[in-house]
Amino acid sequence: MTRAVGDTTGSLLITGISTLVTNDPQLGEGPLGLITDAAVVISGGSGVSGEEIAWVGPASRAPAADQMYDAGGRAMLPGFVDSHAHLVFAGDRTAEFDARMRGLPYTAGGIRTTVAATRAASDEELSAGVARLVGEALRQGTTVIECKSGYGLTVEDEARLLRIAAQHTDEVTYLGAHVVPAEHDPDAYVELVTGEMLDACAPHARWVDVFCERGAFDGDQARAVLESGIKRGLVPRIHANQLTHGPGVRLAVELGAASADHCTHLTDADVDALASGTTVATLLPGAEFSTRAPYPNARCLLDAGVTVALSTDCNPGSSFTTSMPFCVALAVREMGMTPDEAVWAATLGGARALRRDDVGRIVVGARADLMLLDAPSHVHLAYRPGVPLISAVWQRGRQVVS
Amino acid sequence: MTRAVGDTTGSLLITGISTLVTNDPQLGEGPLGLITDAAVVISGGSGVSGEEIAWVGPASRAPAADQMYDAGGRAMLPGFVDSHAHLVFAGDRTAEFDARMRGLPYTAGGIRTTVAATRAASDEELSAGVARLVGEALRQGTTVIECKSGYGLTVEDEARLLRIAAQHTDEVTYLGAHVVPAEHDPDAYVELVTGEMLDACAPHARWVDVFCERGAFDGDQARAVLESGIKRGLVPRIHANQLTHGPGVRLAVELGAASADHCTHLTDADVDALASGTTVATLLPGAEFSTRAPYPNARCLLDAGVTVALSTDCNPGSSFTTSMPFCVALAVREMGMTPDEAVWAATLGGARALRRDDVGRIVVGARADLMLLDAPSHVHLAYRPGVPLISAVWQRGRQVVS
Ligand SMILES: [Zn+2]
Ligand SMILES: [Zn+2]
Repeated sequence: MTRAVGDTTGSLLITGISTLVTNDPQLGEGPLGLITDAAVVISGGSGVSGEEIAWVGPASRAPAADQMYDAGGRAMLPGFVDSHAHLVFAGDRTAEFDARMRGLPYTAGGIRTTVAATRAASDEELSAGVARLVGEALRQGTTVIECKSGYGLTVEDEARLLRIAAQHTDEVTYLGAHVVPAEHDPDAYVELVTGEMLDACAPHARWVDVFCERGAFDGDQARAVLESGIKRGLVPRIHANQLTHGPGVRLAVELGAASADHCTHLTDADVDALASGTTVATLLPGAEFSTRAPYPNARCLLDAGVTVALSTDCNPGSSFTTSMPFCVALAVREMGMTPDEAVWAATLGGARALRRDDVGRIVVGARADLMLLDAPSHVHLAYRPGVPLISAVWQRGRQVVS
Repeated sequence: MTRAVGDTTGSLLITGISTLVTNDPQLGEGPLGLITDAAVVISGGSGVSGEEIAWVGPASRAPAADQMYDAGGRAMLPGFVDSHAHLVFAGDRTAEFDARMRGLPYTAGGIRTTVAATRAASDEELSAGVARLVGEALRQGTTVIECKSGYGLTVEDEARLLRIAAQHTDEVTYLGAHVVPAEHDPDAYVELVTGEMLDACAPHARWVDVFCERGAFDGDQARAVLESGIKRGLVPRIHANQLTHGPGVRLAVELGAASADHCTHLTDADVDALASGTTVATLLPGAEFSTRAPYPNARCLLDAGVTVALSTDCNPGSSFTTSMPFCVALAVREMGMTPDEAVWAATLGGARALRRDDVGRIVVGARADLMLLDAPSHVHLAYRPGVPLISAVWQRGRQVVS
């Protein structure tokens, strides 16, 4: 008997899993903790937080359960954890992308186009846009997604974007320091971001973020933004070293940020800092893909012992993809990652970047966020680029894609 | 009233098309013949060949029809025409891909692994494999797909693969000259391919193909293969200049081949030859993606006036993707094509490479092969890489994906 979509009555035994990625080396082979011919039991009980993984192991030893699901020889993985996305926005930047790909100059405003359209949009429009992208991501296996503000850039609009983001995810990030809006000078804007805007935004966010880059916020400004957020109980993360070398990555490690994101232009000192600290390096190859920029060197980071996560950076300007499978394939093609490393980075790596231990693994007690591939092995995410391989997704134990 | 999936009774008016790619410059703007706020009418009548496009134009001038379909502001394109694929095979080469991506040597046989598994597989297994990939391609918008033999390499097996391919597509290609099998010396094998094997295969194929490359078949051998096929009424196409410079592209033009495929390593003389002849240059960026090889220079070919097509090269060794949207995104990122050029190459370009004038365009009298994107513009195929954007597909007027 197969449990219907959305039905959470009783425990569910999933069998016929050709390859199970647990991400627990204690449970199976290698860093991914691979189990072949595996089974998983999702606990019974209903309610939002009640659905956990109750049992994981070889199918031959699986316990009985109330209901059964036959995975039919497909591979099962933890849901993707996309720890970096900008989903609350309005407006259209298709023409800007098209011009960039034609090699033409495009002076119509870039990020400021999105800010203007976002400010003009209603809450309902913005929320519908987030829902659409979150749903699109879910159908591609993403069961946890982070969401930043940053297209409001006023006290009212930044707080509004965070409230809207919080309707769709727990991982809400205050990014008032995304860019200096046209109407402000930089120092005055930093004062706003670390003062009145922070007061309005802190209650709605878990994280504080800043775009530390030439043309955006320098090292001192980034420090001020992150330290002010920390004082208000937010945990820092940072956009760092995307377009040029800079102080962002070392600042992240110094402040104990959960993640330094982009990490495209790193010095040896940056790599050493990451290796010596607890900050995850989150790589966003979709941005390099869509801007024809050089990719970060994941191999160098991994060889130095840095924890690497992969995320989409979904945003309408530089990386308008929600596809974690695409990021996995790119990471393998372009960044020197093995398929196993890329799959880990897109699941447990993302969980580490969000300091979550309830997701990114298929272990007893973890949240039952699972996906089945229309393929016998997780390697197919890189081996079959562009192919929509996600054939079933469970989120908190409920089957949400089938 | 919406026409049900598979229902072909009466004419169907599709309205609400934000952007329509007709690929007819007479019908709309630019080389893609773009019409905004467009409508399309599919003719009534049933039967395999009866379903054609009856009307195309601005929605404001659309005629009445028996039934209506609201595209809801989405973009409509002709179905993709994938003119290069190897779909009849058995066996698994995931480990080979994984090893290549780890930078490890892998000596387990490459293409010969597939040949051995294919020879051992039943007709039913092979046909199910083709059906699966053709279905996967269709869900990604591919309404015409070519299919080659080449994993049998015996008289009986090559003929068998072609018969199986013909169950799934009209575009069947005899590729006995894919590689020299272990049990033959090259000259004896060419004799077989141009003699007894051709006799067995020609009745089942439209096209003859050869892998002209160092390590496969040289220029003289390739000429012998193609000329023997031409004498039996087959039309030539060729795998040429993929891994190294060579005589393949110029041979293709000289013999009036429909297409020279790969074209990764070209001299100026090769480009001039293509520009002076009728042979389409079919680029297969999935192969470069999955082998970490340099991409062909589409910009150079386009600037020289060469007709360029894009295809997947779907095969288990070097490009295990069925995704034409992925190839479009890669062509824009990596090969200097604009989004418009890549969309043209993946639709009408593919039709040209297959010498078809009934597909690849949305014009009156063309076969009603259409797709709707979950996006307002065809540019999103490149702008939103990896995202499954194909939301509806009609093939011969029947809605086959919804
Ligand atoms: Zn970002
Ligand atoms: Zn091929």
